[in-house]
Amino acid sequence: MSESDIELPRGTASTDSESRLDEDDRLRPEFVRRVMDHVEAGETDAARALVEPLHPADIADLFELVDSDERRALAIAIEELLGGDVLAEMNDHVRDELIDQFEPHEVAEVAGEMETDDAVAMIEDMEEDEQRAVLRALDPDDRAAIEEALTFPEESAGRLMQRDLIAVPQHWTIGQVIDYLRAGDDLTTDFWEVFVVDGRHHPVGTCMLSWILRTPRHVAVADVMKREQTLIPVDMDQEEVALRFQKYALISAAVVDGSGRLVGMITVDDIVHIIQEEASEDALLLSGAGEGDINEPIRESYKARVRWLIANLGTALIAASIIGYFEGTITKMVALAALMPIVMGVGGNAGTQTLAVTVRALATNQLTQSNTWRAILREMRVAVLNGVTIAILLGVGVGLFFLNPILGAVIAAAMLTNILIAGCAGVMMPLALERAGADPAVASSIFVTMVTDSMGVLVFLGLATASGLVG
Amino acid sequence: MSESDIELPRGTASTDSESRLDEDDRLRPEFVRRVMDHVEAGETDAARALVEPLHPADIADLFELVDSDERRALAIAIEELLGGDVLAEMNDHVRDELIDQFEPHEVAEVAGEMETDDAVAMIEDMEEDEQRAVLRALDPDDRAAIEEALTFPEESAGRLMQRDLIAVPQHWTIGQVIDYLRAGDDLTTDFWEVFVVDGRHHPVGTCMLSWILRTPRHVAVADVMKREQTLIPVDMDQEEVALRFQKYALISAAVVDGSGRLVGMITVDDIVHIIQEEASEDALLLSGAGEGDINEPIRESYKARVRWLIANLGTALIAASIIGYFEGTITKMVALAALMPIVMGVGGNAGTQTLAVTVRALATNQLTQSNTWRAILREMRVAVLNGVTIAILLGVGVGLFFLNPILGAVIAAAMLTNILIAGCAGVMMPLALERAGADPAVASSIFVTMVTDSMGVLVFLGLATASGLVG
Repeated sequence: MSESDIELPRGTASTDSESRLDEDDRLRPEFVRRVMDHVEAGETDAARALVEPLHPADIADLFELVDSDERRALAIAIEELLGGDVLAEMNDHVRDELIDQFEPHEVAEVAGEMETDDAVAMIEDMEEDEQRAVLRALDPDDRAAIEEALTFPEESAGRLMQRDLIAVPQHWTIGQVIDYLRAGDDLTTDFWEVFVVDGRHHPVGTCMLSWILRTPRHVAVADVMKREQTLIPVDMDQEEVALRFQKYALISAAVVDGSGRLVGMITVDDIVHIIQEEASEDALLLSGAGEGDINEPIRESYKARVRWLIANLGTALIAASIIGYFEGTITKMVALAALMPIVMGVGGNAGTQTLAVTVRALATNQLTQSNTWRAILREMRVAVLNGVTIAILLGVGVGLFFLNPILGAVIAAAMLTNILIAGCAGVMMPLALERAGADPAVASSIFVTMVTDSMGVLVFLGLATASGLVG
Repeated sequence: MSESDIELPRGTASTDSESRLDEDDRLRPEFVRRVMDHVEAGETDAARALVEPLHPADIADLFELVDSDERRALAIAIEELLGGDVLAEMNDHVRDELIDQFEPHEVAEVAGEMETDDAVAMIEDMEEDEQRAVLRALDPDDRAAIEEALTFPEESAGRLMQRDLIAVPQHWTIGQVIDYLRAGDDLTTDFWEVFVVDGRHHPVGTCMLSWILRTPRHVAVADVMKREQTLIPVDMDQEEVALRFQKYALISAAVVDGSGRLVGMITVDDIVHIIQEEASEDALLLSGAGEGDINEPIRESYKARVRWLIANLGTALIAASIIGYFEGTITKMVALAALMPIVMGVGGNAGTQTLAVTVRALATNQLTQSNTWRAILREMRVAVLNGVTIAILLGVGVGLFFLNPILGAVIAAAMLTNILIAGCAGVMMPLALERAGADPAVASSIFVTMVTDSMGVLVFLGLATASGLVG
């Protein structure tokens, strides 16, 4: 490869990289098609030449973008480019499907190239006997590291951490640290901070490499290091780890076992996709779309979503039976049947708004016991403003259209009440679930819709009956 | 302060830090109360002693957690602890409210301590005349840097970047780089990578500090650096910057101007909160909750949400007028009025599920032109499975309950049709908006609800009429 080829920096106006990626760093459809045309025609050299300049993350995207039945052929064609770095970047479902077609010793070979955390992520979802076969084919060091990681709970810090890190004794000078780093041949090369430990291998501080570079050799490392450090317990849930990285703007953090010994490190690049996943799952959880991954097998998507729709069916039946109870009222004035979905629908939407805000504030630790009452009060004040506005618009409109001021007043009162109920349920329900130790996003949306649907019709048809509107 | 005080690492079993933070790194309500009791009693020394050991991010949280009218007193009590590092971590709304009470020269003093990007974030939302007063009070270097940053569009890379970075010529050796880093007194101390530039100050590569530390002095920096680098154009939107950091697992990246010159750098700790914000905004956008920040002024929340509810009212009127059209049918069989919200509601929910999945796949660049048809097909297959399941359950249930198989068949057919329509609208609408260059989350949810509401009743009441059910 000529030097001009490698020197082209990604993201600049190189026509070469522009023909592969669009302005949003997505692989262009024409490029994807071109690669697959070569693959289908058996022109593996041409396919490889196209794929080779891509970043591993883009090669992973390529596999995700092509159809499920094309992936195997692509994998065979560009075999030597399909390394651990590519598999580490690949969507879980696509990767699982792909490695199902590999022999255990092939999986082991790739796992050996990967960092422990990525290898664990690849192996943890395999069938138990295949997993054992892969572990047997690994070299003893890698096997020990992966087996140890697998002893920690899923989605815990122990599975995310790397064991390769730099730890130095606290009595060393900067000069000793530099000499150690320059001499040690088998040390890891990718690290951002050096951990300083005491005699019991407990972390006592961290030192950014830039400080080491900028400090005279004779200074003790203990005098430059930052003593305030954020330690991650090995069994901490990855969501908490992500929040901690985010809150304290960490680049890397030491992972400690139950007795406080340094056992690994987590770096921010391993955590960024977890921050993204955890932050974006609320929209999916609130709508009951499960994992919501477009690469998820259809059967799993179906199972996750239909469960939610059945629950929704159940809550809708409650509203339906309330309406059924008011059959006599509706018979006398069919317009009520046309108007009641408005009260239900707009109320439900107001509830979802409050719910989305509350769930997000809880997830980002912005809403704690200290400001719970303020948050409730705040949502109720917004609900009053919204309720009054919508009630006036709807009440006046309906009153004029039907030339029936009582009907206008009834629907306005019902609308206002339902928006207040929606605000109340939307803020209280996730708070109650959080207090009870449950995920505030999962069950609250079904509950809030149930409340706004049934209360909406109950108040509307109840008022219509009681007001003598249909007398 | 005694040494044992500072040596306590956060996150370990120190009773001291445990009394301040709970297991999720949130400030304990008792601690917040204790601080505010001291503040109210005028015991500023005691308040300061409690707050001093906190991380700046936790001091910022403290301000967010106390009531709006307590913040000023807290700020006065712990004045010297309220530095640029704390303000940089603070919620925008809380910070804006707080600095409104400062004199311009006080704001300038704090801005002088901050990194350019944080100072810009603090100043950019001020009134124009106050902003000018602050800029005048800054020292000329800081002023120039901030004024230059303000020339870039809001939410662009130019506003996020820091100007303090390390750039070295490509012909240097590792030894020269190390000597330069150790000698330069006015260099920044917080950096993770060194940028290598050519004679025109164009970046040609980056070098991790760990590589510099681990390479012999005589080697040329051009031989160790990574040539494939991700460059960020200075006018790139922050959402794109965040996606790029995430995709390529970057720690820092060079920012270049229109002519390709290195003008700044962005580090991952500045981008993590943007990744979080961009990822979590879908739930808020889909529900029409605007910015959805619990610290947002009530009037702004009201304005954002009521606009959405009014739009929702409009779409609900469409469904209402369709129902009105079938008045005759409903009069003959009032049970239809009780059942139609089920068809509308469950259909709406199925649409929201598809919508949430599609919007997320678009936001994370997982769904591109290459796999659009596969995604549509996938959603339709899930819709068929869901639709058939729910239609059978509902149809059989209704048929048995009302002892009316035709009614069961009508509602089953309507339910199936509506779930299919919901799946279709839920996947097509965001795709169409994205293609048109609009944000797929914002308008699609209103549209999908409108479709499922009005099509639901149309099909249900239409079939009920046409089937001779109410003949």
